[in-house]
Amino acid sequence: MTSFSDIRPLLAEQAIELPSWAFGNSGTRFKVFGTPGTPRTIQEKITDAATVNDYTQLAPAVALHIPWDKVDDYAALREFAAEKGVRLGTVNSNTFQDDVYKFGSLTHVDDAVRRRAIDHHLECIDIMHETGSRDLKIWLADGTNYPGQGDMRGRQDRLAASLGEIYARLGDEQRLVLEYKFFEPAFYHTDVPDWGTSYAQVTALGEKAMVCLDTGHHAPGTNIEFIVMQLLRLGKLGSFDFNSRFYADDDLIVGAADPFQLFRILVEVVRGDGYGADSPVAFMLDQCHNVEDKIPGQIRSVLNVQEMTARALLVDRDALDAAQSAGDVLGANDVLMDAFYTDVRGDLAAWRESRGLAGDPMRAYLASGTQERIAAERVGGTQSGWGA
Amino acid sequence: MTSFSDIRPLLAEQAIELPSWAFGNSGTRFKVFGTPGTPRTIQEKITDAATVNDYTQLAPAVALHIPWDKVDDYAALREFAAEKGVRLGTVNSNTFQDDVYKFGSLTHVDDAVRRRAIDHHLECIDIMHETGSRDLKIWLADGTNYPGQGDMRGRQDRLAASLGEIYARLGDEQRLVLEYKFFEPAFYHTDVPDWGTSYAQVTALGEKAMVCLDTGHHAPGTNIEFIVMQLLRLGKLGSFDFNSRFYADDDLIVGAADPFQLFRILVEVVRGDGYGADSPVAFMLDQCHNVEDKIPGQIRSVLNVQEMTARALLVDRDALDAAQSAGDVLGANDVLMDAFYTDVRGDLAAWRESRGLAGDPMRAYLASGTQERIAAERVGGTQSGWGA
Amino acid sequence: MTSFSDIRPLLAEQAIELPSWAFGNSGTRFKVFGTPGTPRTIQEKITDAATVNDYTQLAPAVALHIPWDKVDDYAALREFAAEKGVRLGTVNSNTFQDDVYKFGSLTHVDDAVRRRAIDHHLECIDIMHETGSRDLKIWLADGTNYPGQGDMRGRQDRLAASLGEIYARLGDEQRLVLEYKFFEPAFYHTDVPDWGTSYAQVTALGEKAMVCLDTGHHAPGTNIEFIVMQLLRLGKLGSFDFNSRFYADDDLIVGAADPFQLFRILVEVVRGDGYGADSPVAFMLDQCHNVEDKIPGQIRSVLNVQEMTARALLVDRDALDAAQSAGDVLGANDVLMDAFYTDVRGDLAAWRESRGLAGDPMRAYLASGTQERIAAERVGGTQSGWGA
Amino acid sequence: MTSFSDIRPLLAEQAIELPSWAFGNSGTRFKVFGTPGTPRTIQEKITDAATVNDYTQLAPAVALHIPWDKVDDYAALREFAAEKGVRLGTVNSNTFQDDVYKFGSLTHVDDAVRRRAIDHHLECIDIMHETGSRDLKIWLADGTNYPGQGDMRGRQDRLAASLGEIYARLGDEQRLVLEYKFFEPAFYHTDVPDWGTSYAQVTALGEKAMVCLDTGHHAPGTNIEFIVMQLLRLGKLGSFDFNSRFYADDDLIVGAADPFQLFRILVEVVRGDGYGADSPVAFMLDQCHNVEDKIPGQIRSVLNVQEMTARALLVDRDALDAAQSAGDVLGANDVLMDAFYTDVRGDLAAWRESRGLAGDPMRAYLASGTQERIAAERVGGTQSGWGA
Repeated sequence: MTSFSDIRPLLAEQAIELPSWAFGNSGTRFKVFGTPGTPRTIQEKITDAATVNDYTQLAPAVALHIPWDKVDDYAALREFAAEKGVRLGTVNSNTFQDDVYKFGSLTHVDDAVRRRAIDHHLECIDIMHETGSRDLKIWLADGTNYPGQGDMRGRQDRLAASLGEIYARLGDEQRLVLEYKFFEPAFYHTDVPDWGTSYAQVTALGEKAMVCLDTGHHAPGTNIEFIVMQLLRLGKLGSFDFNSRFYADDDLIVGAADPFQLFRILVEVVRGDGYGADSPVAFMLDQCHNVEDKIPGQIRSVLNVQEMTARALLVDRDALDAAQSAGDVLGANDVLMDAFYTDVRGDLAAWRESRGLAGDPMRAYLASGTQERIAAERVGGTQSGWGA
Repeated sequence: MTSFSDIRPLLAEQAIELPSWAFGNSGTRFKVFGTPGTPRTIQEKITDAATVNDYTQLAPAVALHIPWDKVDDYAALREFAAEKGVRLGTVNSNTFQDDVYKFGSLTHVDDAVRRRAIDHHLECIDIMHETGSRDLKIWLADGTNYPGQGDMRGRQDRLAASLGEIYARLGDEQRLVLEYKFFEPAFYHTDVPDWGTSYAQVTALGEKAMVCLDTGHHAPGTNIEFIVMQLLRLGKLGSFDFNSRFYADDDLIVGAADPFQLFRILVEVVRGDGYGADSPVAFMLDQCHNVEDKIPGQIRSVLNVQEMTARALLVDRDALDAAQSAGDVLGANDVLMDAFYTDVRGDLAAWRESRGLAGDPMRAYLASGTQERIAAERVGGTQSGWGA
Repeated sequence: MTSFSDIRPLLAEQAIELPSWAFGNSGTRFKVFGTPGTPRTIQEKITDAATVNDYTQLAPAVALHIPWDKVDDYAALREFAAEKGVRLGTVNSNTFQDDVYKFGSLTHVDDAVRRRAIDHHLECIDIMHETGSRDLKIWLADGTNYPGQGDMRGRQDRLAASLGEIYARLGDEQRLVLEYKFFEPAFYHTDVPDWGTSYAQVTALGEKAMVCLDTGHHAPGTNIEFIVMQLLRLGKLGSFDFNSRFYADDDLIVGAADPFQLFRILVEVVRGDGYGADSPVAFMLDQCHNVEDKIPGQIRSVLNVQEMTARALLVDRDALDAAQSAGDVLGANDVLMDAFYTDVRGDLAAWRESRGLAGDPMRAYLASGTQERIAAERVGGTQSGWGA
Repeated sequence: MTSFSDIRPLLAEQAIELPSWAFGNSGTRFKVFGTPGTPRTIQEKITDAATVNDYTQLAPAVALHIPWDKVDDYAALREFAAEKGVRLGTVNSNTFQDDVYKFGSLTHVDDAVRRRAIDHHLECIDIMHETGSRDLKIWLADGTNYPGQGDMRGRQDRLAASLGEIYARLGDEQRLVLEYKFFEPAFYHTDVPDWGTSYAQVTALGEKAMVCLDTGHHAPGTNIEFIVMQLLRLGKLGSFDFNSRFYADDDLIVGAADPFQLFRILVEVVRGDGYGADSPVAFMLDQCHNVEDKIPGQIRSVLNVQEMTARALLVDRDALDAAQSAGDVLGANDVLMDAFYTDVRGDLAAWRESRGLAGDPMRAYLASGTQERIAAERVGGTQSGWGA
């Protein structure tokens, strides 16, 4: 079997982008609970993200959300982040919170609204040049609530046209990743509901357009690792939005709801050359910490990804291939489960310590007094949330 | 076959409670869109509900939500409603929007929080005496997001104790209805997730406690009409919260997503003596009009219930029984489908006109200029929504 | 609004292929119940299919399943069908009942098994030349039951290679349609689980390869009409396998479980030019009549499709476009619902009578004595089922 | 934290019943694959079950299925089992494979059919006296495929009456456990679809009637451990049918699809005093080994239950309670996950060896040559399957 020492060099290649909005307040339509210490500014969000990276060395980048994270001077923001030890990552557009987008944005039947939505994305690309971001991530809230409310076909065609304009503006090193989502906030149809639609749309655009797979955006029972395999095979897996779910788009901590599913996903990532410094696949979190503290929530998240990646790397590929080829159902499954059930936590702690980190980053963070300090300091102002 | 004239007397017995909050703004965690003409006060909500009743004669009562609809003088509110031609109906408690309820209310591990939640319900019962309401409806947002976060067993026991205190305060003519919900806002477990739990809890309380069935609160694929049948059989169906859904608790207009399901539900209601003036079953709406206008949304909703009730009443029970007894699968199904596919709209229009109503209430409302008038009048103030 | 007379010419263009196996016995893993009158031979199946066509003029073709419907002389079979008034249609391959396919067929890791599966399809193409069939339909049971059992990526690549060999053998007028299925008989992964995979595979093959959409082969909650729209938009919707379901691949009578869904599907078919004599889309049934009689089950099925097609054609496109463009959510939905709630049965009966058919084909069939006659005649021999 | 040595005494109390039918062939409606070495008789099935017990000491009983396992002399069968080191356990009735049950059994509208189904259960009770079995397990295939096909209410009432007759025949030490199932083989409604229905029915019967929870018989997303908690709280959890699933009632090896779910279930079992020698809860497997070998499949299954039980027992209840009481979401979750991620396999191997067993029962079995021996010996005759 593959041993932990075999995978040590690979572990250092792990990098997970943190979403700036994970540090702000979030909740459900019923209530958003506030938390002491929640950032009031993008600088405080970046500071918190950098804290996660300080304790884990797993999170070197922060994804931005425009307009929530808009600033006057992106060069200064970039420098601010660099001083904190992180860089600015993927830029996320937002066409779901302006009143004008009530019935759609890039798919809207009204050209004026569609123009506005396209222009917003062009502005995002401009920002990306300043922040040094590679990826423009587009998640559309577009959709309808009632059969007949919209013409799905016309909307799809307009989406293609809108994306074409946005794609044309991309720089040579920039990419567009199109996220799909099964439902919510639209409850009858969404305009990019599944990987097939995202794939068809980005394939029509060109090489710089890829699919973004959010692990919470599928129908019940969907075999997500199959989609991972397929998109890697087709050369179109651009990025992950990691989180977990029991029901819908619950946006829980990655690995919390079904750790074995996360393992299977990472096994396919490794299998399909989606892991490592040279991979085109961006690993990001997209989560909401509705009831738990946010910084430790993010620490737990990146540790979960790291622990599961380690297990995925431990899979004995030769033994697996042999069992698969022999039609040895139980033997092949056992090879996989052996890696999954291996407790990698001790080895990872030692590895972290060898790199100057605390063996248990969560415990170290909790003991550091940081949480109490920011709770005391960050009084007054408006806590960040969805919308700011 | 049963003819329309056979069912005319029964149609007059239909009464559907409208939720006050359906006239306020609602939305998703992503965005709440405002609408011109949205009420600013409970009086304006009642006025709008009365408008729905004026056009349909189907909605004689308005359900209240405490504290959203709190007033100083409930007697005056009751009189206000009476003048508008409606009465105050079910009182809905709310233990999900106060910060103290972040980790539960009637199930909370902290007795002080639990006390507060119980007291809130006792206050609701006091209000019910003033408003003349029969039913206290309890929907709990209680639950957890992560395995281990709470002790489900202890929470269930505390729920039983809390409900016991509330039940003890009910007047002789009052009832408690306990609503269940599959998930949301909690994403790992909810404390009353299914009809079985609600049934076990209300059975332990006594005769005045019943189950409230919200048609959007089930797992995918659940046969809801079976539950309707079972609860009627067990004598424990207290009320319906009608709405419809394609995915989760979408809260769309009743009958919009799956009209045939609404038909099957109403067939079981009729079959189990749940329909009519003497039935203990309260029919209520619980919907959100996120993107459509609210008054016409409610008009459409009560009309959908009425049309489907008419179809359910049209089912030829004798022919159905005969086919069922004979093992004639297709014949029995045909009897049901024959009623479902019957276009009752013309007959219902004539029946309405015979009662002094417009044959097409929706068209009449839209032509009345009411929507334009309230949009012009209701300027300034704060539009109602979840929270006020 | 569109009137029934407007759509009369279009109704005559409706043609639905019947599956030969729908006339044989079927059931679940728990039990297959026999029925008096079940065919023993392909000739009797064709005779029954022709009976359905005699009463409805909706079912001019019979789909074959190889090897279940293998004969020595296909020319004779073709002539037999022609004498009965029907033609031989789509040929369905079968790589799931031979012991050798336990771990896969076109995806198998063993080249010898894969060769056999490919050769089976080449034989099917040979048969198609003799039967005059246009379409080779491939539904794969390939998949695995346990994580790790197979290498999903390798299987996908081998599938592509296998399909390439089959595709190369197609005649100029022949097509390959690749069906996808969410799960069953494999319970962890299936090799063609979703439309995206089928689309990616057939796109790689060429113009003569299309997707087959079985309405029962999706995850819970999937918006099927969206997929219909998308595949028509992409020019890749080759055929439908119609049936209905409450839970999984229940294979119930089309339109029985959710008639409104069938309506929405057909609305998108019409919207996307998928209906009519010139359309490339083949309409087929793929159902199991486990507990109901088979011939009347098929009659009911084609009538359901016809009635729902009529409603879909009745949609007032101009009014719909106007409401959609105006953002009139309720108005647009009303246009759709108006067509759905229109009772077309009387008009269709009159239209049938004008064409020399019984107005109520089901009643006419039941009164004809055919069912009793075949029950009496078809004694002895082995009733057909899955396997023969 | 709880240490492995703390839980050693408890591990010895684990006992899991094996289903006789797991050793026979099984499959899907598409195909049942045979396997070399499959038993031809109940004696061979018992022999195989005893083999599983020989290697694991976890499986001291074999559940029977009547009529599949009918013999002339149950006393002799009991003795045969005892000689093999196992006892005869739960008796499973079967009212789904006789033609007369096409439209139901205990719920049938025809009294004669219902009489026959009741009598079958009385016969099962007679057999139980001879086999020394405590539990009569009733899983009903009863249900309908089409709305209207049956009168659900009447069926439910007849079910209650039928169960009453059966219950009355139980001996003082005997129990009736009623299993529920979401769907299949019925595809519209099943007569015992959920735990609520089973609970209501068995509560009406009396103390000797309990609920049987099959882990594969729920709607997608159902929180099964909540039901476990609730039934234990209500004193009505009689037994488990363990298996796992990704989609429907897949009947895969327990723990294979979602090991974390199995862990959570066992945590609630332990929490609710459902584990141990004095518990009223019977642990059984109910699985199908469609593509894997059967004896090793069962060995893997009982090991999975044992490993996960060990993890559940390792949960540090004090730390968990403290974190739960403090509202420490992440801390409480961490306590749970710490137990789940602990690799108990080494400790369990040592514990087994201390009891004279092989440390790795699976490897020991595979090395024993048993599989090859029975494959060579069991030639001729008819392999067992569903039906014999």
